[in-house]
Amino acid sequence: MKKHNFSAGPSILPRKVIESTAEAVLDLNGIGLSVMEISHRGKDFQAVMDETVVLFKEILNIPEGYEVLFLGGGASMQFCMVPYNLLQKKAAYLETGTWAKKAIKEAKNFGQVVIAGSSSDKNFSYIPENYEIPADADYFHITTNNTIFGTEISEDIDCPVPLVADMSSDIFSRPVDVSKYGIIYGGAQKNLGPAGVSFIVVRKDILGNVERTIPSMLDYRIHIENGSMFNTPPCLPIFTVRETLKWLKELGGVSEMQRINLKKAGMLYDAIDKSRIFTGTAEKRSRSVMNVCFVMKDEYKELEGDFLAFAQSRGMIGIKGHRSVGGFRASIYNALPVESVEALIGVMKEFENTNG
Amino acid sequence: MKKHNFSAGPSILPRKVIESTAEAVLDLNGIGLSVMEISHRGKDFQAVMDETVVLFKEILNIPEGYEVLFLGGGASMQFCMVPYNLLQKKAAYLETGTWAKKAIKEAKNFGQVVIAGSSSDKNFSYIPENYEIPADADYFHITTNNTIFGTEISEDIDCPVPLVADMSSDIFSRPVDVSKYGIIYGGAQKNLGPAGVSFIVVRKDILGNVERTIPSMLDYRIHIENGSMFNTPPCLPIFTVRETLKWLKELGGVSEMQRINLKKAGMLYDAIDKSRIFTGTAEKRSRSVMNVCFVMKDEYKELEGDFLAFAQSRGMIGIKGHRSVGGFRASIYNALPVESVEALIGVMKEFENTNG
Repeated sequence: MKKHNFSAGPSILPRKVIESTAEAVLDLNGIGLSVMEISHRGKDFQAVMDETVVLFKEILNIPEGYEVLFLGGGASMQFCMVPYNLLQKKAAYLETGTWAKKAIKEAKNFGQVVIAGSSSDKNFSYIPENYEIPADADYFHITTNNTIFGTEISEDIDCPVPLVADMSSDIFSRPVDVSKYGIIYGGAQKNLGPAGVSFIVVRKDILGNVERTIPSMLDYRIHIENGSMFNTPPCLPIFTVRETLKWLKELGGVSEMQRINLKKAGMLYDAIDKSRIFTGTAEKRSRSVMNVCFVMKDEYKELEGDFLAFAQSRGMIGIKGHRSVGGFRASIYNALPVESVEALIGVMKEFENTNG
Repeated sequence: MKKHNFSAGPSILPRKVIESTAEAVLDLNGIGLSVMEISHRGKDFQAVMDETVVLFKEILNIPEGYEVLFLGGGASMQFCMVPYNLLQKKAAYLETGTWAKKAIKEAKNFGQVVIAGSSSDKNFSYIPENYEIPADADYFHITTNNTIFGTEISEDIDCPVPLVADMSSDIFSRPVDVSKYGIIYGGAQKNLGPAGVSFIVVRKDILGNVERTIPSMLDYRIHIENGSMFNTPPCLPIFTVRETLKWLKELGGVSEMQRINLKKAGMLYDAIDKSRIFTGTAEKRSRSVMNVCFVMKDEYKELEGDFLAFAQSRGMIGIKGHRSVGGFRASIYNALPVESVEALIGVMKEFENTNG
C-alpha cells in the first residue's frame, strides 16, 4: 500500500533526494568513498558545502551583507544563540505557540524580554495583530510558522528593529524578502533535509554589539569567519540539504513552490470547511500553508479515534494532532505531493459518508 | 584501484555500516519510509535510539550511575558545555595539543583554569608525566588521543577530582574503566559514525553543582531527562552509530578491537623504526595507536613531496601530515583493515628501495 507521509518533522523528503543521498552514502561522485568518510576540508566535501550555500542564497534571493551558516544543534540551539549574540538589554518576542515560548524562555537568561503580542488566550489559534514592537528593543523575534497550532505569519512584516525569525517549518515554502530580516534560522528537518543541521541567514552588521563573552561555538562571527567549518560540520545532512535545494531549483524555485503549496493547502482547507464532521482549529486568516490542524466537530468528537485508525489503515502517516490541540494535523510540506493531499481528502470524505 | 582511507576524520567506516546506512536511507526496516523522514518520537526511530544507547553501554561496560547522550554540535560544543556544567571556581587541564588548547580557551570564559601539565615545549610530541592535579579543582580535563600530534594517553589515570576526557579519536579502540571518569565525550566521526553527532557519557552525580544559569540546550541534566530528545536529534548520524556498534559487537568488542589496533599500530611503527628514511615524530612511550605521525629524516627531507605523490598514486588517501607537524599521518582507526596498513608499509618500502 502506498504511504502518504504527513509527519510534522522530520518529514517527507523528495524521493529523488533520498535516492541521491543513498547513492552518496555508498560512493560520492564516483570517488570510491562514502560522503560519510571523507575529510570535510577536502575538495570533494568543500564543493558540497560551497554549492549548498550558493543554492541557498540564489533560491531565497538573499541580498549582499548576509551570510548563510549550516550548524549542528537544531533550531533549539538558536533559541540561546540569538540572545547570546544580540540581546544586550531588551528583546521583544511574539508569543504564538510552544516553540515561541521555548525561545522566550531561553532569551530570559540573557536580559529583559518583552512579549509584544500573544495568542495564548485562545490556545494560539491565531496570529496576534496590532501589537507594538518597542523601538528600543535589540531585536524582535517571531516564529513564522507554528507547527503545533497550524498558524503562520505568511507575510514579511515591517519592523523598526532587527527582525529575527524562526522559519524552521516554512522556509522555502514561499518567496521571502530577506532584506526585512536580521536573522532567519531553523532546523532543516521539514522543508530542507534530514534532522541534524540548522540553517542561519544572518545580516552581518547586526553582530558584535553585545558586551558579554560568547563561547566560540555560540558566536555567529566565528562560524562566519570559518565558513561553517569552525569544527567538523554535519556533512551528510548538509549533502542532503544540497540535494533538496537542487530539486527545488529544478522545480522552479520558491514562487512555483508557493503556487503548489497554496493549491495543496487550499484543497485541504476547502474540504475541511465543507465537511459536516471536521472543522479547522486555526482562525482562517492565520491558517498555515504547511500544517493543517483540524478536529471533529463537538457532536462527532467520539469518532476521532475511529477516523485516525481508518486513515492509518489507508496509508496516512503522521496525522495525529499534537496533544496541545488534539484531533488531526496534516503537515503538507514542500515535498508532499498533491496526490497525497487528494488521498487524504478522499479518506476524509469516505469516512464522512459512512460515519457522518 | 583500491583506495586505502587513512583520513584523520571524518574517516573510514566499516563497509557493512555504509551499506546498511544506504539501505535505511532508502527504506528503514521495510516500513516504506526513509530513516530521514520519520518522526524521532515514533516507535521506529525510538527503537534506533534505545538500541544505540544499550549497545554503547554494553560494549564500553558502563557502570550504574552514568548516562549516555547523543547530541549535535560536535566535541567543540563540549569544550563549552563541560565548563558551563562543571566549572564553579577552578578547573585543571592537561595541555597535550591543538584540541586541548581549544578546550582550555573555552573553559577560561567560565572560571580559573590551571594547566596541570603541558608538552608545548616540544611541539606536543609527548604526554606529560609527573604533573600534579590540584585537589580543589572542579574537574581535570584530558584529551586522551591527540590526532594531530600522534600521542595518546592509553591508560585510565587515577584522578582525585572528576576526570573529564575528550575521547573523540580513540573511543572504542580499547577497553576503558569508565568508573574512573566523570565525563567521556567526543565527536562520532572517527571510530563511531559520520560527522554530526557527539556522544557524552556522564556520571550523573557530578552535575548540579554550579550556580550559573545554564541555557537548556547546554544543560546535560535537561538532555538526560529527555533521553537525548529535548529537541530533534541528528537521527541519521545516530542510526549509523548504531550500525557501527553492532559491527563492533559482532567483531568481539573492545578487547578484540584493541588486539587488532595494537597489531596494526605495531606493524606500522615497526616499519618506521626500521626505515632508513622515515622517522616517527612522537616519543615512543606516548605513541598513539590511532594516528601514526612520521616524517622523512633530515637528510631525505626533500623527498617528502615525492613520497606523498607516490603514495597517493598507489591509492593511499589522507596521509598528508597536519601542518603543525608536517610529513605524514596515517590514521588507522577501528574500521581501517590490516590490509590497508600492509599496503602502506609496502608503498613505504618500495619508495625507500628506489629513493633511499
